Amino acid sequence: MYEGVVQDLIDELGLLPGIGPKSAQRIAFHLLAADGGDVRRLVDALTEVKARVRFCEICGNVAESEECRVCRDPRRSTAVICVVEEPKDVVAVERTREFRGRYHVLGGAINPIDNVGPDDLRIKELLTRLADGVVQEVILAMDPNVEGEATATYLARLLGPMGLRVTRLASGLPVGGDLEYADEVTLGRAFEGRRVVGG
Amino acid sequence: MYEGVVQDLIDELGLLPGIGPKSAQRIAFHLLAADGGDVRRLVDALTEVKARVRFCEICGNVAESEECRVCRDPRRSTAVICVVEEPKDVVAVERTREFRGRYHVLGGAINPIDNVGPDDLRIKELLTRLADGVVQEVILAMDPNVEGEATATYLARLLGPMGLRVTRLASGLPVGGDLEYADEVTLGRAFEGRRVVGG
Repeated sequence: MYEGVVQDLIDELGLLPGIGPKSAQRIAFHLLAADGGDVRRLVDALTEVKARVRFCEICGNVAESEECRVCRDPRRSTAVICVVEEPKDVVAVERTREFRGRYHVLGGAINPIDNVGPDDLRIKELLTRLADGVVQEVILAMDPNVEGEATATYLARLLGPMGLRVTRLASGLPVGGDLEYADEVTLGRAFEGRRVVGG
Repeated sequence: MYEGVVQDLIDELGLLPGIGPKSAQRIAFHLLAADGGDVRRLVDALTEVKARVRFCEICGNVAESEECRVCRDPRRSTAVICVVEEPKDVVAVERTREFRGRYHVLGGAINPIDNVGPDDLRIKELLTRLADGVVQEVILAMDPNVEGEATATYLARLLGPMGLRVTRLASGLPVGGDLEYADEVTLGRAFEGRRVVGG
């Protein structure tokens, strides 16, 4: 429909997650009209990321050198490992400023529909890290959905016999949320996990 | 929050229209995990578009040479010009296969809020094209919204005294739509523009 190179760009943009054909067209025409410098910066950012970013050899987080920022930081405790699905989950946990241990990024969750099994995740690497007995606690911080729960259950069974403390993040009402609008599963979890606060 | 180059990419992606910070992050991590070849093709498409695409010297449509595909096509009538806001509107009209004339792309619509006046649009270029008397009809195909209507009204007043036929696309019920769900303005336009079909 469009002159060749414009259609090529629309096609390539349409392959990105969450970008449909209409958004791809909108972005392509935005870039066509944009300043050459803006497009240059986007191209440079893409090129740099592919050239410089790799994955931390220890934890699997994104890194610009062999080890990521967290694994390089000597102030972070080596006694606790927080296991997450993706590098972006590391960022989410870091934002809380609650956690001062290390991470382990699985690279996904068990998902039979997408054909992702335990062997496709960085579970062997996790077991290797646990072998020397330094780690005291493993926090399972998978997403609270079917795939995340399945992965957490699998890991809990695998790590249980190793004599470590294995914990899972609490489920319950989101802070700032409204009880009336909570779905029944979340509200059920909130009841299950209720705490004594007085009396 | 992220290692430098990853954050740079997220920032650049976040500048694109319709991409919020969450989508930018999602796309960045998709690209991080993607095959180097996929990213290369996106980078090439971006680079090619900026290097090769320009705007047609006659009509303002996107083009890979001095003149766009439509203006170069000798089978297209020179007696009718369809005036549109953006190059993507050319594609929308072309898809109907109803129109065999030429186009004129204004590059936007009159919009006082965004400080776009008639002088910011390619209206002088349109008048130049009309000067030799070859064009018999000008179809105003602006968007049926406030800015589009304002632009069409402005152009209708400007072109009216030139002795051309000046037409505007029909407003009415969208085909496949449902009368019950039509907004009152559209339904009102459909009444105004009703046609005799029998009797």
